[in-house]
Amino acid sequence: MQSLPSLADIEAAAKRLAPVAILTPLIGSPVLDEHVGGRVLIKAEPLQRTGSFKFRGAYNTIAQEGAQAVVAYSSGNHAQGVAAAAKLLRVAATIVMPSDAPAIKIESTRAQGAKIVFYDRHSEVREAIGERIARETGAALIRPYDDPRIVAGQGTLGLEIARQARAMGAVPDAALVCCGGGGLVSGTATALTALVPGIEVFAVEPAGLDDTRRSLEAGRRVENDPAARSICDALLAPTPGELTFEINRRLLAGGLAVSDEEVLDAMAFAFRHLKIVVEPGGAVALAALLAGRFCAEGRTVAIVLSGGNVDPELYARAIGRG
Amino acid sequence: MQSLPSLADIEAAAKRLAPVAILTPLIGSPVLDEHVGGRVLIKAEPLQRTGSFKFRGAYNTIAQEGAQAVVAYSSGNHAQGVAAAAKLLRVAATIVMPSDAPAIKIESTRAQGAKIVFYDRHSEVREAIGERIARETGAALIRPYDDPRIVAGQGTLGLEIARQARAMGAVPDAALVCCGGGGLVSGTATALTALVPGIEVFAVEPAGLDDTRRSLEAGRRVENDPAARSICDALLAPTPGELTFEINRRLLAGGLAVSDEEVLDAMAFAFRHLKIVVEPGGAVALAALLAGRFCAEGRTVAIVLSGGNVDPELYARAIGRG
Repeated sequence: MQSLPSLADIEAAAKRLAPVAILTPLIGSPVLDEHVGGRVLIKAEPLQRTGSFKFRGAYNTIAQEGAQAVVAYSSGNHAQGVAAAAKLLRVAATIVMPSDAPAIKIESTRAQGAKIVFYDRHSEVREAIGERIARETGAALIRPYDDPRIVAGQGTLGLEIARQARAMGAVPDAALVCCGGGGLVSGTATALTALVPGIEVFAVEPAGLDDTRRSLEAGRRVENDPAARSICDALLAPTPGELTFEINRRLLAGGLAVSDEEVLDAMAFAFRHLKIVVEPGGAVALAALLAGRFCAEGRTVAIVLSGGNVDPELYARAIGRG
Repeated sequence: MQSLPSLADIEAAAKRLAPVAILTPLIGSPVLDEHVGGRVLIKAEPLQRTGSFKFRGAYNTIAQEGAQAVVAYSSGNHAQGVAAAAKLLRVAATIVMPSDAPAIKIESTRAQGAKIVFYDRHSEVREAIGERIARETGAALIRPYDDPRIVAGQGTLGLEIARQARAMGAVPDAALVCCGGGGLVSGTATALTALVPGIEVFAVEPAGLDDTRRSLEAGRRVENDPAARSICDALLAPTPGELTFEINRRLLAGGLAVSDEEVLDAMAFAFRHLKIVVEPGGAVALAALLAGRFCAEGRTVAIVLSGGNVDPELYARAIGRG
């Protein structure tokens, strides 16, 4: 077991990221507040460099790695994060991506100068491909979540929520954070529980792929049914990370799950009322709130919109549902 | 001629608005910076209450008006701004809207509790309808731009750009601001030219409806061809306002015009890279930058994305163009 990242590790990551990352806004929405009967603080992370939080962890890791080349496997957002960070740090990057990743994520990764190797999500094991490339080329493998430097990097988002909420005179009672492998929610929980006394942090996952929610209940890491599907392409990890679950089982208040229909409704709500483009996996926390999976009445709740890399066709479908 | 609003009037408006308006973020975009070869500061005003800047001027005006009821004519964003401000201030609102206004703007206005009266944009004169209702009901007419309180309210957006840029260590050389009747650009120019020495402020309009650009060149208010059409439903005023042009001819560096095609491209760019939903009229400043109407190379340029109230069908068409 690797050591658990501390608040100090997150603060060090924030210093590394300050010159290159966007300080994404924490904003309110009167319409959303009225809708849920509470005060919602929205972390608008789609406005981050590369369109998702993944740049944070990737940059924090590659900056400390000191390698000439890196390799990563990713459904798309980690790919873009690694490619952009590698470009800024003048390191060569190879990305192993599923052949059915959203076109917008493939193109944006390529635009950052990374080399892309495709694999079949249902018949090949991406970890094995990534490790083989690392072995053969000497590139350092940048894992998507199970690395304390990744967790500390993603945790800078939680650090910012704590600071921005304070500047707005708000004290969040709870935070809802999307969860795939658990890097973002574990890092964010590390920062928020250290800085906001009594805050409850929840992982939000797609229904049927809610391995973290079930693992928290079971007290041990459980797996998803390999047949489970979701439009949330960013949240398809088969089981919680070893490191991230070790953090999450200590710090999280629980897990929530939302359906694809609820995710599409949340994307449409964000289009109509927040004016922020959110991808399916980035909308699960908002979906949990809107679907009443979490009661915000009379409370102050921070929610993370974690990314906005969605193909126009799917987006048009989400916003055109009336 | 009414008196020209001063920086002090804008600061007073900012105090009135502080408890109810969203302090919308001023953010950077590495992709856009690279694209134009300069530093761009993006004022993300679609995140404002009601989805556009119009709430600022409406609230600032109604708060000072002291009336029991208000009436306004508007293609949509001023309608929503007036309806939301009136609701907050517990004043009855009647809105005169064109029957072809975007459905999203009509529904949102109605959702704020306003009474809506429709008119035909091409055969009826909205000013006359608004004034008749004011006369018959005793409601105060809230003009869309030609009122110093409206201009001061919209100017708070310029005040925020100046303060937020300073906090980011940036000094804008220029600002590009959309222009219909001229309320936003005149107020923003009043604040920015007072606070940022040497800044050049430009009005951006749809080609063929670039009455302010041509009026600035002619030195007097000229009209648009009544046959001119544009997808920028928020920017269809037939001629510059009397008050707003008096300010703009003193303070603006010039005017720029963009085609509907360039506007659609800018909306798609904002979807893909900025993750902000922008309506046609709200995208003209970005369009001017992307289309090379303004050279940002080596300069720091503030641009205003002024609103995001666009129907899903048109938005899907804009982002699906490849």
